[in-house]
Order: sequence, then structure tokens, then C-alpha cells
Amino acid sequence: MKPIRSFLFVPGNKESMLDKAAFAGADALILDLEDSVPPPEKAAARELVARKIPELAAAGQRIWVRINRTAHIYDLDDLLAVIQPQTEGIYISKPYGPEDVHMASAMIAEAETRANIPVGTVRLIPLLETARSMQLCFEIAEHPRVIGIVGATAKNADMSRALNFIWTAEGRESDYLKARVVMAARAAGKWPIGGIWQKIKDLDGLAKSSQLDRQLGMAGELALHPMQVETINRSYTPTDDEVAYYQGMIDALDGAMAQGRASVMYDGEHIDIAHVKTAREFIAMAQALKD
Amino acid sequence: MKPIRSFLFVPGNKESMLDKAAFAGADALILDLEDSVPPPEKAAARELVARKIPELAAAGQRIWVRINRTAHIYDLDDLLAVIQPQTEGIYISKPYGPEDVHMASAMIAEAETRANIPVGTVRLIPLLETARSMQLCFEIAEHPRVIGIVGATAKNADMSRALNFIWTAEGRESDYLKARVVMAARAAGKWPIGGIWQKIKDLDGLAKSSQLDRQLGMAGELALHPMQVETINRSYTPTDDEVAYYQGMIDALDGAMAQGRASVMYDGEHIDIAHVKTAREFIAMAQALKD
Amino acid sequence: MKPIRSFLFVPGNKESMLDKAAFAGADALILDLEDSVPPPEKAAARELVARKIPELAAAGQRIWVRINRTAHIYDLDDLLAVIQPQTEGIYISKPYGPEDVHMASAMIAEAETRANIPVGTVRLIPLLETARSMQLCFEIAEHPRVIGIVGATAKNADMSRALNFIWTAEGRESDYLKARVVMAARAAGKWPIGGIWQKIKDLDGLAKSSQLDRQLGMAGELALHPMQVETINRSYTPTDDEVAYYQGMIDALDGAMAQGRASVMYDGEHIDIAHVKTAREFIAMAQALKD
Amino acid sequence: MKPIRSFLFVPGNKESMLDKAAFAGADALILDLEDSVPPPEKAAARELVARKIPELAAAGQRIWVRINRTAHIYDLDDLLAVIQPQTEGIYISKPYGPEDVHMASAMIAEAETRANIPVGTVRLIPLLETARSMQLCFEIAEHPRVIGIVGATAKNADMSRALNFIWTAEGRESDYLKARVVMAARAAGKWPIGGIWQKIKDLDGLAKSSQLDRQLGMAGELALHPMQVETINRSYTPTDDEVAYYQGMIDALDGAMAQGRASVMYDGEHIDIAHVKTAREFIAMAQALKD
Amino acid sequence: MKPIRSFLFVPGNKESMLDKAAFAGADALILDLEDSVPPPEKAAARELVARKIPELAAAGQRIWVRINRTAHIYDLDDLLAVIQPQTEGIYISKPYGPEDVHMASAMIAEAETRANIPVGTVRLIPLLETARSMQLCFEIAEHPRVIGIVGATAKNADMSRALNFIWTAEGRESDYLKARVVMAARAAGKWPIGGIWQKIKDLDGLAKSSQLDRQLGMAGELALHPMQVETINRSYTPTDDEVAYYQGMIDALDGAMAQGRASVMYDGEHIDIAHVKTAREFIAMAQALKD
Amino acid sequence: MKPIRSFLFVPGNKESMLDKAAFAGADALILDLEDSVPPPEKAAARELVARKIPELAAAGQRIWVRINRTAHIYDLDDLLAVIQPQTEGIYISKPYGPEDVHMASAMIAEAETRANIPVGTVRLIPLLETARSMQLCFEIAEHPRVIGIVGATAKNADMSRALNFIWTAEGRESDYLKARVVMAARAAGKWPIGGIWQKIKDLDGLAKSSQLDRQLGMAGELALHPMQVETINRSYTPTDDEVAYYQGMIDALDGAMAQGRASVMYDGEHIDIAHVKTAREFIAMAQALKD
Repeated sequence: MKPIRSFLFVPGNKESMLDKAAFAGADALILDLEDSVPPPEKAAARELVARKIPELAAAGQRIWVRINRTAHIYDLDDLLAVIQPQTEGIYISKPYGPEDVHMASAMIAEAETRANIPVGTVRLIPLLETARSMQLCFEIAEHPRVIGIVGATAKNADMSRALNFIWTAEGRESDYLKARVVMAARAAGKWPIGGIWQKIKDLDGLAKSSQLDRQLGMAGELALHPMQVETINRSYTPTDDEVAYYQGMIDALDGAMAQGRASVMYDGEHIDIAHVKTAREFIAMAQALKD
Repeated sequence: MKPIRSFLFVPGNKESMLDKAAFAGADALILDLEDSVPPPEKAAARELVARKIPELAAAGQRIWVRINRTAHIYDLDDLLAVIQPQTEGIYISKPYGPEDVHMASAMIAEAETRANIPVGTVRLIPLLETARSMQLCFEIAEHPRVIGIVGATAKNADMSRALNFIWTAEGRESDYLKARVVMAARAAGKWPIGGIWQKIKDLDGLAKSSQLDRQLGMAGELALHPMQVETINRSYTPTDDEVAYYQGMIDALDGAMAQGRASVMYDGEHIDIAHVKTAREFIAMAQALKD
Repeated sequence: MKPIRSFLFVPGNKESMLDKAAFAGADALILDLEDSVPPPEKAAARELVARKIPELAAAGQRIWVRINRTAHIYDLDDLLAVIQPQTEGIYISKPYGPEDVHMASAMIAEAETRANIPVGTVRLIPLLETARSMQLCFEIAEHPRVIGIVGATAKNADMSRALNFIWTAEGRESDYLKARVVMAARAAGKWPIGGIWQKIKDLDGLAKSSQLDRQLGMAGELALHPMQVETINRSYTPTDDEVAYYQGMIDALDGAMAQGRASVMYDGEHIDIAHVKTAREFIAMAQALKD
Repeated sequence: MKPIRSFLFVPGNKESMLDKAAFAGADALILDLEDSVPPPEKAAARELVARKIPELAAAGQRIWVRINRTAHIYDLDDLLAVIQPQTEGIYISKPYGPEDVHMASAMIAEAETRANIPVGTVRLIPLLETARSMQLCFEIAEHPRVIGIVGATAKNADMSRALNFIWTAEGRESDYLKARVVMAARAAGKWPIGGIWQKIKDLDGLAKSSQLDRQLGMAGELALHPMQVETINRSYTPTDDEVAYYQGMIDALDGAMAQGRASVMYDGEHIDIAHVKTAREFIAMAQALKD
Repeated sequence: MKPIRSFLFVPGNKESMLDKAAFAGADALILDLEDSVPPPEKAAARELVARKIPELAAAGQRIWVRINRTAHIYDLDDLLAVIQPQTEGIYISKPYGPEDVHMASAMIAEAETRANIPVGTVRLIPLLETARSMQLCFEIAEHPRVIGIVGATAKNADMSRALNFIWTAEGRESDYLKARVVMAARAAGKWPIGGIWQKIKDLDGLAKSSQLDRQLGMAGELALHPMQVETINRSYTPTDDEVAYYQGMIDALDGAMAQGRASVMYDGEHIDIAHVKTAREFIAMAQALKD
Repeated sequence: MKPIRSFLFVPGNKESMLDKAAFAGADALILDLEDSVPPPEKAAARELVARKIPELAAAGQRIWVRINRTAHIYDLDDLLAVIQPQTEGIYISKPYGPEDVHMASAMIAEAETRANIPVGTVRLIPLLETARSMQLCFEIAEHPRVIGIVGATAKNADMSRALNFIWTAEGRESDYLKARVVMAARAAGKWPIGGIWQKIKDLDGLAKSSQLDRQLGMAGELALHPMQVETINRSYTPTDDEVAYYQGMIDALDGAMAQGRASVMYDGEHIDIAHVKTAREFIAMAQALKD
């Protein structure tokens, strides 16, 4: 599956923003029915989003929807409305642990069945916003419907309330959470997803933040505003220099192998088959993003 | 339950120090029967502490006692002496894992029963001083009698021997342990407790250290000396600026909601319901500390 | 068992390098049949290594062998050739989790049995190079044959591909992995092993890197070249100043105990029995390395 | 809580049967919305049952409802209709394991919340009708909302399809399942519930079957028809002889204790404190059923 | 996949028996390289079996092979010889638990890879002959390559040594093991396989034994001799009466449903949708065995 | 370790019974401080038992002691008194699960340490008298200090109260418990221990009961009275006929192997290497009981 660098949140109650979202350049959209929609507008937003899904998909967008969590379950009406053949996946908020992810997945299966979509088609990404879900992130990531887990932090948001830490841009308090999410997701063969940068206009801050996430191993990131998309995409796109570096590494080891050696010094470092595997995967990923 | 910012250790064999402890301003006292009491004085200290508990409680102190670990269990005589109606909880050293926490809890239940105190009244805080207890800190934190877990580090102390790391004031080697304890404790709904600053007279160092712990999410901290209490309390007390900041955030979103929006820019950041929940909890905690 | 500060990789197909390895000063050698040997030379390397083991052991070297992983298991021919009475242990690459470590251990037992060596004699160290093995490092470390686990990172190597992070010399992306390996290994009573520094000629960089690993709690480190051994050994050897510091601490508390106190201020810090235990273990380790 | 010997199924679409149910003498009713209601009548049955709950409760009945399982979840509309202040609990069919029991419990909590009933009030009994739920019956029984688990078998019903055994009245094929359910339920402090006798008119067969279930440790049983209730109640009610036997045992040991002995021969058997505890619990249960 | 009623063991060292096996009428053959082959003939038997696999498969036989267990692993040479495109699966002896099943599966994957067969094609059935493997039979049955588990008992064989029970034809001592294997296998969606009847010529005893196993829920059984095949097949084949009974049940409920009822009395029993599902599965199975 | 067929309970407060116990012929004695001692005599019994241990051991008896369970732990004073160099093991009552077994083991370790006995010397047998301990019997059996587990049932005793079944001499209600204990114990390499026959004078009933237990796989049994010992020992001792039968089997296969066959018909059954292993173990056990 083609990687997703940027998931752009779009409020589900704003038709004009939904219309514009197709032009934001995001790798995927998250049509939001949850925190960005005021309670009185939830029902209208659900209808609007349900109507926009085929349109946006026809415009080439990959469609995800963040549904509401009700008092104790997820919003079945949301799911019945938005699970459509064009829906790539669902974002859920605040699971308390793997049992809630099972429940969300079963509710999605119910909606798939009623919509005549093969069970298991629609993917799931949980936002790890409770301390228990962070603690149990590997168990959550192992659920077969889950394709990624979000380990995002921001000043004063759910995540910081859950852990009661004080968010900083440098991220000392967030590094553990993020590194843990990266390892757990990768161990389960899923995407670790980072973010969030709340100072919408501070693109330099965003660039720095997304590069730090990328460096820790994140596969992509949540965007709060279309303005952020280009910066995020750039942070997660291999540069030409990087591509050249890895191509050179492949060539160097190929040369050494031709001479019967299994390792070579390249750019001052000791390189062997393991490194070239990394290089080939990097170039494949760079190519996938271009296609 | 009212938060505890500072737990002050007081040697159980020093009557004058026990007497003065009531004036130290600590949120709770730990009357210590363990490492700060030389072996020949253990029995006398036990008696002294047992006698002081009602006095100190009458003076408004919240009373915790650190008991001894014998060769393979915890010290039953210590427990029988110090489990009294005024005892809020027990600190135990060096559990090897959840089974030892179960054992300590059963021994406390035995002492509660003999003292006619309802079983489960006395709380338990384990000091994570063995590597295995740190590894299994979430399982330990889930025990119903446990109200907090301590992830404290200091130069050359038990914790550094367990992991064999070299302690630094900056804490690169301790950050993983501390962040892990914060997440595990919060995931179980318990308090993560930090510390320890051994350079008693270096209050600036202490302030920096306790602010780092607070920033990582610690709920409070161990104090070795009455001199440290005020600095620690300050680090864990919300400032007026912080209270004003969060009150402003609540007001800003309330305003936005009144206009049918679910999010607002506040102080240059994108704020929604999730942030306001953090704000309300922060203000409630600040209020609890004032009461 | 005497600690191992440096494990030196030696390509298993280079007789002259194998011969010279005995003079490198490494605490242990890893005769490598895996990535440093080109595929066409694997069979010859296996024979060569099998022949060199008794020689190198006779020259006082502690012998480890890194065997190949075939498509789905480990290389049984490698094991049958290199499990000899002088073989201290086996390094394995890329286990996917505890089940693979069980499988490797069973294959070693098979080779021990056929070589008339008591089952369980030969130790095992897994290189944590898959994300799942890192995630499950504690479960892996608990296997009775495992004596250590490797949490090494390097630019573009298996480990960075597994987590997809960007390696830096400062190690922000690696700290979580390394701290996690330290705690898991210590919790299971095993050695955490660090490394790797690929810029062979940059000994200053190596010194800094190995000191950072040591400071995090690593017990020793992988060396890629004989040139690196001395630097690594130095990083993991207590200095005279350290020995003096800890001896002073023991003396100070002994003095205090003689006067009926259980703690003392030493070098500006509050010291008690816990610290002196650390001191005694440190001095014992320093002594073991001298013997 | 007062024991329940007989749970009587009543089809939820038959008003006259619902009305008569109050006179059947069952300890509890199960108003059935599931397999005894033909699909086209499900919606009407739901309304009818919702309407009858307060009536039947007012007539002194303890009310349970068996809801439908939809394709992948439980029927939320059923739950929203039947969770009322008078509803003692919900029966669910075919959970696949503990995750489904969590899901059902969360859905019940949702309905409790919307009905302003304190969360956790309504109890849950899962029918173990899939092999996986039988395999994991202890894990299911441990869920706090679960008050009992059903290990019932009958010719050709769900349970025999799940295990593919051939049902016999003697029950060789069912004994393992039933004994397993008894132990798992008791280990979790819950009720093991047996049954089912499908030959409605064969009351002798029913008596034998229910006595076998009782003898294995079942606490009560499912009834398919009002005719069965009296027989079932009798099987699970202590006889006068039994009460006299246990009272005699208590007296005998009391006598022995008065003479300083801790055991006595009673009715040819060696009796001590353990037996008298059983006797006292038996008499307490007999008394509870009379009240 | 078509059910297998009878798995016939054929000694792998007897060419004439292998040739005749194709005419025995067994649903599948187990070409045995293990206990029925004397050690000096193991190598020759391996070659013979490898040669016979394509022949027997061409003659319409479903081919399974029981390989040897060496001191600590499974026999890799056996696997490399007998994993061929026509091989349906492998029987393994004496796994000590799930880890050994993982190991066997990895060794099979290795052989599949070398034989250019897609990994996962060849199925696995473990003989539960150690007490630990019986205890952990559910965990074993959950392995994706495992298609069935054997819970067979016989006088003095491995199974009785493992549990140290005294085998009886009535099977009181075996019922627990067998019922446990049935539930665990069905819970994992796999086949429970029974047997073994050692009195080769006592076909009446065999018939009784296989009917008891079938009644407990076994899906098929091991045969030691061609003479046993017909009796076993008969025990596991639905009779015409059974087919008629279930067809009548389907008809009866169809009739009731047409009149708006969801249950009906059939043959004196209360029947609903659950029973008819059993009936349909039974008839489908009967049909599959005829095809 | 030599098997134990009969464990004879002796009241710890009856000196004459303790003196006579040495002549009862039991393989081991259980000096009882628990239910057979009236509360006022507990302290005196403890002293008496402590005094008798060396005497009885000197008389060739293997000594076990059943200690008291206090409100929440085990009786530390009991343990400190009876853990002596001659004590083979401790029986504990009513553990609630593996955590309690850990606690008991730690308390025994404490007593061993104070008595200068190497930690781990004294063995532990838990009486599974709570439903939870029966449910978790495998986890309990895996504890390294545990050498056996008791799955005994009797009319109205703790075990029947725990499961609330009705005890019968035929044991339909007990078979599941006993077979489960046999498998769990054997899976952990421990002894399954049966019993109890309360009708002291009914030796025929005892013989039948102990033979049923033996047949299920029990290794030995609890005896309530010296009169029962001989009957029990006989039930668990191989008969001469059995020894002859197994010796004949060994001879038969040896003969077949000499002719190049790996199996043979013996006494009408198909016999191979697996059966002969059983035979050899049986004869070894018979020999151990004679020594």
C-alpha cells in the first residue's frame, strides 16, 4: 500500500473546507465528525460527510473519517453513514485498550456488512489518547484491522492530560511515547503516525517538529490545516541527495561483491548486505511516493 | 484523594527529627524503619514510630511508613506495629515483581485484620529498585492496593545498581525509566512519584531536578530532608500564570462554542474540547492543593 | 562469569584476520559466518572457523560464532561445525521473537548432543535486528540459554531499517531502544550489549559513542575492527579515580556505622547502605577485569 | 443475591405467553427476542417486551432479556429498548470470546447511560455456544458485569454443532463441558448455569437431567417451558433430609469442639471444620430460597 | 477441505505395504518414518518414502508423513526429502509445547522454500504425546499451520506414560483428554483426531471405540492397519437414517417459519434456527464425504 | 526422588498418635497443625510437632507438616518452628492462586534462611481447596518449590463447597477435577496426589477409591488414618503380574528388533518403542518402591 505522509483533518461540518480539501495536496484526508464539530451540528455533519465521500474519492482523495465516541461505545450512526465503498479507513478516539479496538472493529464489520462491503476492507487507526492505550500500544497495533497507530502529542491536548506531562517543542516528555509507538507499530508491521503541530502559522516550527518525528521513525503525520501539508510532505519525502546516497551505497557493495567481498567502506562507514537492504527499501519508498 | 507533592523521609530512630517533621510542610511523611536506621536500632525505631504515628497524625500529618524487607519477605513485626488507624500507607523496598507486591499486600491485610482496620484501607507504594520491578511496573501499578509507584533515581543508589547506569543530573540515563513509570502509573490510574536529589544543600539543583520530573509527568517526589520540601512543593504547584492561562483557554472555547464553533485559536494554538478538559483538570488540581 | 567489554567481529573467511584476532586484546571474539562472508565462500568459511576454534581458544581467546540464518531457520550445518568444547557461545541474527530464540536454542542443543557436550553449555546472544524482537526483548532475555541481548544501532543497518528511523551520532532515535534493552536485560539478569560504531578510523567518535552506551548501562559492546578494541575496553573499564571514589564511600559509611549512624554525607551527597552496595559491586567488577 | 434455580424462556412475540409467565413459578424470566422470535416479528417483539418489563416486574418477577446478535455486534436497538430500571440482566448468545463480552458490556453501559441507570447495574449472562467461548469460559466469567455463564447442552443445538459431538441423555459428551463451566464459574465467584431439556413433556427425563446438573455443581438451569419450572426448582432446592443431615453435622462438631476435639465421626465419616463450613453454607442457601 | 475420517499409518520401510496402502480405502495415508521403522533402516525408509509420494498421490491418495524427532529438534533430512508438491501434511511426535510446533513449522517452511513450494502449503498435525503438549493443546491448535491435533490414547503407549494413567477400553481415564482436545481444536477451528485401537483383529472393539470418539466430537481417527479402515470410515460416516432425520428437521422448521413461527416440536423435541444450522452442516458434511 | 504412595495425616496435638505414626507404614507423614487441631491447642501442637520432627525422622520417616493459614497469609510462627533440616516439605491449605503459592514459598525461604537451611530445600504441596486454585492448577504446579498438587475430594469437605457439587463414591462430579490435576501436574513434571476416603473403617470402599485414583494417573494419596495406609500402598504398588507383563513386553520388542522389525504383536496388541519406554519406566518405579 502506498505510504501516507500527511493525514489532513477537515471539519465535517464545513462544506467549503471539505470542498477545498481535495486541493490541499494531502496524501489522505480525515473527514472529522468528532472534536472539530460542535455537538448541535453532529447530525448534519454526518450527512454532509456521507455525501462528500464519493465526490472526494472521485477527485482522487484517499478518504478516512474520524467518528465520535459516545458514552461507552463508538457512534454506530456515524459508522453506518460513512462506511462506503470509497472509505479507506476510520479514525477512532480514546480507546481504553485492545478490547475497545476489537469493539470498534466489530462495529465497522457490522457497517461493512450492511453496506455490502467485504468484511475487513475498511482499515482502522486508533488515536492513542488514553494512558492505557499508550501502555498497550503493541497489543492494539497487532489487531488485524489496524493499519497504523497515532502517537501524537501537543500542548494541553488529550495526550498531555492522559500522562499529565508538560508539552515542550523539544519534546523530552514526548520522546518516550513516540519512540514506543514507533517500535510497537513496526513490530506489528503497521505505520507509526506522529504530529501534531498546533501553531498553524509557524511553518518553521512545524518543519522542525515533523523532521524530529520522521527521524524517530514515524511514517507520516497528522495535519490540522491545509497550510501544513506541503511542509509535512516534504519532511517525509526522501531528498534527491538521500536517493543518490543510497544508490551509491548499492553500487559500492555490488562492486565489492563482484570482487568476492561481502562488505565495503562507503562514505567512511563499514557497509554490508544489511545496509544495502535498507538502501533498496528506501529507494522503493521514494519511488512509491513519486508514482 | 488530595494530591501529594512531597513525601518527606524521616529516620524512624530519631525522636527529635520525628517531632520536627510535623513542621516541615511536607504533604506526607515517610517514617523510615529501613535504610536510614542502623540495624541495632531497628527494634527501638519500630516502637518509637508506632508511638509517634497517632501524635503526628493528630498534628495534621499524613503518615506513611517504610518498612524493612527481611531475607525473603517483608518484616511482619514492622507491619503489626505500624498499621494503625492513622496510617495512610506503607512504602516497600525492592519488590522483585508483582508477586512480591501481592505478598506485601497480604501481609498488610493480616495486620489490618489484627488491628480491626477494614481490609484495603492502608495503601501501598512500592519503590522500584530492582530491574525486574521496573520492567514489570505496569503489572505492579495495577494491584488494587497500590496507589503510586516510585521511579526515582540517584547517584549510586539501588536504582543505578539495578540498571548499572551512570547517573547524571541531566538524566539521559534516567529518562526512559521515569517516562516508563509515568505512563505505566497513569495507565493504571495511579501516581507516578519521582526524585531523589541527594545534594541536600543544593536547592537550585533540586529545583531543576524536580521541575524536570514534573515536566515528564511525575505527580510528586521523595524528599530526603526538610530543607527540600518547600522547593519540591513549589515545583509541583501550579503557578498563578498557569492558572490564568488555563482559565483563559476555557473562556476562549466557551466563547467559540457560543458561536457554534468547536475550536478556536488561543495564544497561537489550535484549541478544542480536548484542551479544555486538560484545563479544567489543571484548575481542579490547583484548587485541591489550596484547600 | 568474567564480564566482556568488547566482542570483536572477525570475518570467518579470512584466515589471516582470524590469526591476528588473538592479538587484538578483545575480551571475546565473534567469528563471523554471516554478513561479512560472501555467499560463495560460506562453506569454506565454516570449515575454516571450525578449524580455528581450538587454536584461538588455546591462545586464550573466548570464542563466539555468528552463524547464518537460512530462509526460515538457523543454519544447522554451521552449528554442527562450530559447536565445539571450546565454543563459549553463538550469536544469532534477526530472530522474530522468543519462538525463534527457542528454535535456535533447540538447534544448539542438537549440536551439543552430537558433539557430546552437556546440553546448555553453549550460551546464546541474539542480535535484536527486527522490530518484533526489540519489542519482545524481555521475553527473549528470559530464555535460560541467553546470556545477553544486543541493542546496537548504526547508520542504515538492519536495526534502522527495522524501525525506519534516521540514525544520528547523538542517538536521540536510539536512546529508547538502548534504554529498553538495558532494563530488559538487567531485569532478566543478563548482559545488555551495545555498539556499533561504523566509522572505523574515527576513534574519538567511537570513544564518545561507547561512553554514552556505558553511561546508559550497557555492559559491553560490539567491535567491527581490532583498532576499536582498546577504545571500547577503556570505556568499560573503571578508572582509578572511580575506584578511589567508591572506596572512599565505603570507608565513609563504615565510619558512620561505627558511630551508630546509617547514613552519611559523602562528597556532598546523602549516602546510605544502598550506595555502599553499589560501591562494593563496582570494585568487585573492577577487580574481575584486572584478573 | 438470592439464588436463581430456574430461568424460564418466554418468546418475546407472544403477549399471552408473556402474561402467563408471571404465574409459572420461575425464579427468573428470560424474555426472548432471539431464536424463538421469527425475523419478521423481531421489531414488534422488541416493543412488546419493552412494554411488558415494568408489568412483569411489578408482578414480582425477576426480568432478564435475551437480545439478538446482529451480523457482528449485539443489537443496539434491542438494548436501548429493554434496559430499564426493572431489568435485572441481559442474556447474550454466541460470544466468540472475552472481547465480545467486553463489547456487550460496553453496549449495555451505553444503554444504561441513556436510560439514566447507574453504569454496571444490569448484569450479563453469556450463553457459551461457540467452542471458543467454552474454551475461554474462565476469562469470560471474570468480567465484572458477568454474574453467571451457561454451559447447557441439548441435542442438535448450537452447543453440539460447535463441538460437533453427539448429544446423549447420559451426557458423557457433555460432562467435560459442564464440569469445566462449573469450575470456571466458581473460580470467578459466579453462577454456573445448566440445562437444557428439550423433550418438554418428559418430566422424568428432565428431573434426571437437572439432578445430574445439580450434582455436578450447577447453580440453576434454563427452562424452555413453564411445565418444566417446578421440576427444576425441586432439583435445586435442598430437601428436608439434606437440611437435617447438615444440621446434625454442625451439632456433632460443636459437641466435639466443646470437648477439645477438632474432628468427629459423623454418619460414618471423618468430619472437621471444613465440612461444617459446607454445612452452614448449605443451610444458608436453603434459607435464602425459602425467604 | 474435504474431511478425513481415517488416517492410515504405513511403515515407511516396507515397499509392499506402501504399495498396498493405496487400496486400503483410507481417506489419507501417514507414511511413517518414525516409530514403526527400526533405526538402521531410517535412511533407506526416507528415500523410499520420498520416491513413493508422487506415485501414491498419482493413485489418488492424500499423503501425510510422520517424520522423526531427533534429540532436540525434528529431522531436517526427513523434511527435505518428503516435502514435495504432493505432500498434504506432516505429522510430528512429542512436541513439548507451542514453541516446538513453531520450530517444526519453521523447519517445514525451510523445506518448502528449498522445494519451491509456497510457504504455508504443507499442513501440520502434532501428536499430543507429552503431558505439556496436552495441557497446552489450545495454544498448539491456534498455530496457523496446524490443521488438527491428535488426542489419541492406547494401552501403554506414549500418551499413557505421559499421564501415567491405566488405559481402559471404556476410557474413563481418557475421556478428559479427549474432550479437552475436542474443545480446544474446535475453538481454534481445527480437527480433533482420535484413536488408537491396538487390538488389530478386534474389529468390534474398534467399532465401539471409534463410535465413542465420534460421539465425543472427534472428526476422524488414526488407523494402525488397513483392516481397520472400513470400520473407522463407517463410524465417521453419517448413516442414511441420520441424513433423513436432519432433512426432516429442516423441513419441519421451514414449515413452521412459513407459518410465522420460529420454533417447532420435531420428534418430541423443541427445535429452532440453531438446530437447523446443525442439520444443514451435517448434511453438507455427509455430501462432502460422498463426493 | 522415591515416589510417595501414602501421605498419612497425624494430628499435631496428639503425642501418642505422633509416636505411633512411625509404625503405620506410610511413605510419608503429614504432621498436622491445621484443621485437626482445635484452636486453643495450636500453640502447644506447634511446639510438640517441632520437637517430634527429629525423632520421627530418626525413625526413618519422611516428614511433611501442614501449617495453618491465618487471616490473609500463612502462619509464620508455624513455619519458623517446623522448618528443620529433617523436614521434607510443607502442605498448605486454600491458596487462592499462584500468588499465594509464591507467598508461601517466600515465607518458607525466610524460615530456611533463619534455620541455616539452603533456600529451596524444603518442598511444597498445595491442597487445591478453592475453585480458583483448581482453575489455575497448572500455573501453581509450575512453581519450582512445588513438588506435587492435591486434587482430593470428599463428601462435604472444602473441595465440594468450593465447587458446590454433590460428592459421590463413583465420582462423576470429581473426575474432571482429578483428571485436570493429573494432566496439569504431569505437564509441570510434578506429582498429582489424590484421595480422600473418609469412611475410615470401609477398607473395601477405600481400595476401590484409591484404585480409581491410581487408574486416572494419581501418583499417591492422602490417608486420614493409619488403618488406611496398607490399602493405599497396595493400590499404588505394581503387582507381580504387572511387572511380568511389562518385562514380557520388553523381551518381545527386543526379539523383534533383533530381527529388524520395530514393532511386534504382544498379548494381542500392536507394540513399538513407545510402549517399551512405558514398560521400562514402570519397572523402574516398581524397583524404586522395593528399595
